[in-house]
Amino acid sequence: MFNNSESPVVGNEEKVVLGEYLFDCLKKEGITEIFGVPGDYNFSLLDHLENYEGINFVNGRNELNSGYAADGYARVKGIAALITTFGVGELSACNAIAGSNSEHVPVIHIVGAPPSMDQQEHKLMHHTLMDGNFDTFRKVYEPITAYSVKITLENAMQEIPTAIHLAKEKKKPVYLVIADDLVTKPVVMRQPMLPKSTMTNPKTLQAALAHAKQLLESSEQSVLLVDVKMMRFHLQQDALALAEAMNLPVASMMFGKGGFDESHPNFIGMYAGQFGSDTVRSMIESAQSVITIGLVWADTNTAKFSAMLDPLKMIDIQPEKVKIGHAEYPNVLAQDMIKGLKSMGYKQKEPIPTFPYPYVEEKQNPEALLSAKSYYPRIQQMLKVNDIVIGETGSFFYGLSQVRLPRGVTYITQGGWQSIGYATPSTFGASIAAPDRRVLLFTGDGSIQLTAQEISSMLTNGCKPIIFVLNNGGYTIEKYLNVKTKNQLYNQVPNWEYTKLPEAFGERAFTAVVKTNKELDDAIKQAEAESSNKLCMIEMLITNPLDAPEYMVKMREYLER
Amino acid sequence: MFNNSESPVVGNEEKVVLGEYLFDCLKKEGITEIFGVPGDYNFSLLDHLENYEGINFVNGRNELNSGYAADGYARVKGIAALITTFGVGELSACNAIAGSNSEHVPVIHIVGAPPSMDQQEHKLMHHTLMDGNFDTFRKVYEPITAYSVKITLENAMQEIPTAIHLAKEKKKPVYLVIADDLVTKPVVMRQPMLPKSTMTNPKTLQAALAHAKQLLESSEQSVLLVDVKMMRFHLQQDALALAEAMNLPVASMMFGKGGFDESHPNFIGMYAGQFGSDTVRSMIESAQSVITIGLVWADTNTAKFSAMLDPLKMIDIQPEKVKIGHAEYPNVLAQDMIKGLKSMGYKQKEPIPTFPYPYVEEKQNPEALLSAKSYYPRIQQMLKVNDIVIGETGSFFYGLSQVRLPRGVTYITQGGWQSIGYATPSTFGASIAAPDRRVLLFTGDGSIQLTAQEISSMLTNGCKPIIFVLNNGGYTIEKYLNVKTKNQLYNQVPNWEYTKLPEAFGERAFTAVVKTNKELDDAIKQAEAESSNKLCMIEMLITNPLDAPEYMVKMREYLER
Repeated sequence: MFNNSESPVVGNEEKVVLGEYLFDCLKKEGITEIFGVPGDYNFSLLDHLENYEGINFVNGRNELNSGYAADGYARVKGIAALITTFGVGELSACNAIAGSNSEHVPVIHIVGAPPSMDQQEHKLMHHTLMDGNFDTFRKVYEPITAYSVKITLENAMQEIPTAIHLAKEKKKPVYLVIADDLVTKPVVMRQPMLPKSTMTNPKTLQAALAHAKQLLESSEQSVLLVDVKMMRFHLQQDALALAEAMNLPVASMMFGKGGFDESHPNFIGMYAGQFGSDTVRSMIESAQSVITIGLVWADTNTAKFSAMLDPLKMIDIQPEKVKIGHAEYPNVLAQDMIKGLKSMGYKQKEPIPTFPYPYVEEKQNPEALLSAKSYYPRIQQMLKVNDIVIGETGSFFYGLSQVRLPRGVTYITQGGWQSIGYATPSTFGASIAAPDRRVLLFTGDGSIQLTAQEISSMLTNGCKPIIFVLNNGGYTIEKYLNVKTKNQLYNQVPNWEYTKLPEAFGERAFTAVVKTNKELDDAIKQAEAESSNKLCMIEMLITNPLDAPEYMVKMREYLER
Repeated sequence: MFNNSESPVVGNEEKVVLGEYLFDCLKKEGITEIFGVPGDYNFSLLDHLENYEGINFVNGRNELNSGYAADGYARVKGIAALITTFGVGELSACNAIAGSNSEHVPVIHIVGAPPSMDQQEHKLMHHTLMDGNFDTFRKVYEPITAYSVKITLENAMQEIPTAIHLAKEKKKPVYLVIADDLVTKPVVMRQPMLPKSTMTNPKTLQAALAHAKQLLESSEQSVLLVDVKMMRFHLQQDALALAEAMNLPVASMMFGKGGFDESHPNFIGMYAGQFGSDTVRSMIESAQSVITIGLVWADTNTAKFSAMLDPLKMIDIQPEKVKIGHAEYPNVLAQDMIKGLKSMGYKQKEPIPTFPYPYVEEKQNPEALLSAKSYYPRIQQMLKVNDIVIGETGSFFYGLSQVRLPRGVTYITQGGWQSIGYATPSTFGASIAAPDRRVLLFTGDGSIQLTAQEISSMLTNGCKPIIFVLNNGGYTIEKYLNVKTKNQLYNQVPNWEYTKLPEAFGERAFTAVVKTNKELDDAIKQAEAESSNKLCMIEMLITNPLDAPEYMVKMREYLER
C-alpha cells in the first residue's frame, strides 16, 4: 500500500517546527493564500502564518463562506487550504467541505485545537461538547472527507504529506486537526511513506482497448461526451487531442461545462436530455458509440434521468477505470485509456455539424422589460476569452448552461452539490486566486442573501468582480421544482436593496438597478469600464416572478407530466 | 430499558399521515413555530406545514442562522424545531446543533431527504456525495446529537416520540431524517415504547443526604452556587426554595447567569474566580460547604480554572447524580436531592452580606467618549423586569456577566460553546418565541458580520429588538486572548456602517451612531420610545480598540503571568 517514491522534502539536521513544515508542504502545492476565520485555538497557526513568507491568510466573514471561497480558489488554482478553529469554526464549514467532496475539489481543511495538555486531561474546554472528548468533530468530518487525522509532532511528517497526496489523487477534501501548542514545536524527522497510487494494469488496458476498438469500428457515428471529472482530473488536453485525432463531435454534460473549449469546431453544445437542445440530444442519443470522459450520472446532470444513453454503446472512461457495455476494466487510468484510443487510428467519418446556439444575438426592443429571452443573449455577448464565470445554483445554473463560452473561460457552478449561497464566496475565492482575470458572478435574490457578507470581503481585499443579481422576488427555481402547489409563502424572500450593500459594508462600488434591455446594456458597458477600478454590482429587476430560461420551462413541463 | 407509561396519543382507527403525526407531536410540546430554510427535499414537509393549524414556518436567511434562531427560541419556550434540506441545508446547521448539545438546549432537527425509491436504488441525486449513500449525513450528526434516526412509515410512531422524549430528558438536540415522499403517507399505527427515564434510588438518596448533613452541620458558613444546568433542567424554583429554607447566600457561575433572581436578597453576585468580584470569590472560597446545582467546571466558566473550590467541601448536585467530597451517588435526581436537603432542617446562621455591584450608576461626563466604565452602568440602568437580554460571545459576554439583572429577565449567552455570530439569529428566535417581551441584543462588530442577514428576518417578521453593536474595530476579545502578539492583521474586521443595514435589507428601523455618553443616553431613550413600533439599532463607536470590561483586563493580566 505504501511507497516512498514521491516523498516531499525532508530537512536534514536542522529542526523544523510543525507550523513551518505544514506551510512548506502547502506552498509546494502552489498555495499562496489560505482562507479562514481566526479563533483562539488557531492563533498560533495564524501568528505563524502572518510571519511566513509566500502564503497570506485571507480572512473571511464566516467559516462557511471561507470554505466556499477555498473551493472557488481550488477550482482556479488546483488546490486550496482553509484554517478554522475547533468546534464552532470547523462545524460551520461542513457544508462547504462536503460540497468540495461531492464536486471533486481538493481542499486541505486545517483545524486549530485546544492545547495538548488540556486534551490529555480531558478538561472541559470552550468550543467542545463539555464531555472531555476532543475527537468528536474529527468524527463529524470523517464521512465527508477523503482523510481525517489528528496531527502530532511524531506523525506530522507522515500524515501531512499523506493527506495532501490523497486530496490531490482523489480530488477530495481532507481534514487535519492540530493542537495549538504544537505549531511552534519541532516535528520528529522521518521519511514519509505515501499511499501507493493506482497504476494502469497493462493487460486490462489492452482488453479495454480491444473492446473499444470493436465497438468503434462497428459505429457509423461516434461522439465524445465530456463531464466534470474530466476537468477535475485535468484531462482537458487529453480529451481535446482525442476529439481532434478521432474527428469526434463533442458535447458536454451540464456538470462538465467549461471543460471543453466551446469555440472549438468539434464542439456541438450541451447535452441535457429532455430539457436541453433537441439537436444535440438527437445526435448524442442516435450515435452508435459514445465515448464519455469523467461522466457522473446524476439527476441534475441528466435532466432528471431523462437523458437516454444505451450502456451497450458506451465507452465510459473514469479516472481509474473504464466501463464498456456491461464490462468493467478496473485499474485503468483515464489518461492511459485516452492515449490508447488516440493511437488506435480510428477516425469518425461524418463531418461535424454546426448547431445553432440558443442565445445568438437578436435585436432586442431596448425599452422592453428584462426577460430570460433578452438578458441571456446580452450576457452571451459580454463574455470574453479567459473570463472566470460563476453561476449560482438556481435559475442561472440552468440558464447559463446554454451560453456559449469563449476560449479559456473558467466556468464555476455546483452542478451536483447545488448549495445555494455558494457562488458569492466562491467568487471571492476565485478573485483571490486570479487577481488578473475578469470575474463575473451571476446570482439570484434567493441565493445571495445566504452569504452576502462575503461581498464585504471582496471589497476589503480589492477584488473587482462584476456581480449580477437577478431579483425575481423569491426562489424561482424552487417554484419550478415544486409543481404540486403554487405561491408557497416559504418561497418568498425579503426584497433587499442589493445595491446598497456595498455602502453598508463601508466601501464604494459601481452599482446599477436595471429593468429594461437598454438599462442592462448601459449598465454592462459602464461596469466594463469601471471594473478595472472597483467592484460592480448590477441588480436585474424581473417583474414576472416566473420568468425563466427555456431549460426550466421544459423541466417544469416534464415534472408536471 | 423501555416502558410505555408516557406514550403520546395514538389515533384509533383513523389513519394519520407522517407529516400530520410529526407536527402533532411537536405541537403537544408547545412548539408553535418551526425555523428553517426551504429546499426541494423538504417541500412536502413545508407544504404540509403551510396547511397545518397551530404551527407556523419561520423562514431564515440561511440554515446556520435558523439553527441559532431555534436555539434562542428553545431557551425561551423550552424546546424548538428546525427543518432543513438534505446535505446542503442540514450541514450548514452543524455548528448550531452542536452548540445546542454543548449548552443543553433541546432542538428537534428535521431533515427532508430524497424520495425513498431513489434512495433504495442508490441513484446519484443532487445534494449528495454522488456515491449512492444516503446515510452519510446522519453519520455526521450522530456524534453531535443525543439521537439520530431515519424515519420510516413503520417506525414513525416509535421513533418520533422517542427522539422528542430524549431531547427533553437529556436537554440535547436530536436528528430525524424523512424522505420527502413519506410525508403525505399514513404511518403504521403502534403504541410507542419510550426509553425508561432515570429514577432516584431511595437508598442512594438517603446515603447522599446523610453525607450532606454531616458536611453542613460541621460548617459555619455554607453557600449555594448555581449554574447552567440548573436553568436547563428547570430547577430554578427548587434552588430558590432551598436558598430561602437554608438561608444560603447564592452566587451564580458565568454560564448560569440569569438562573437565580439577581434582585433576591440572598443573591450576592457572580463567582468568576480570579477575573470577577473579589468579595464574592472570597465568600465562596472560604465557605466550609458549597452546594452547587448544575455546575459545569469549564475553562470559560471558572476564569480559566482560576476558581478554587475544594472538592471536599462540595455538595455537587447534577441532574441525575450527586457528588459529595470524593463520593459519587448515581441515580439521584436533582429535584429529589434538593427536596431532601430542604427538609433537613439545616439553617445557615450568618446574615447574608450585601456586596456592591460593579455597575452602580455614577455620574458620567456627558461629553466624554464611551468606554466600558461608562456604558455598562447605562446598560444596567435601562434593564427592566422580564426583558430578554442576549449577549454575544466576546467582550459583551464578559462585561454583561457583571450586570445585575432585574427579576424575570431571560439571559441568553453561549458560555461554553461560544460561537461568534450566535447572538443575532438567537435574538430572532427569542423575539419569535416571546413577541410580547422586550428583547435586547448586545453584540460586537467582529460577531455581527457572521450572521448579519438575520436582521433582515427580524425586520420581515416584525420583530422589534433593540440591537446594540459595539464597534471597537475588530475582534477585541481575540486581542485579549492572544497575549503573545500585537496588532495581528487577522483580528481586523471591515468597518461596516451597521446602521445602514436595515435600509439595504429594504426595511425601516430606528438607528443611531453614538460616540459619547450623552449620545448613548439620548439614543437609548429614543429607542425605548421607538421600539414598540420598530426594530432599533444603536452603533456604539469606541475609539480605544482595547477598551474592555474589568473582567477582560483581569483575564489578560492573568494570561500574561
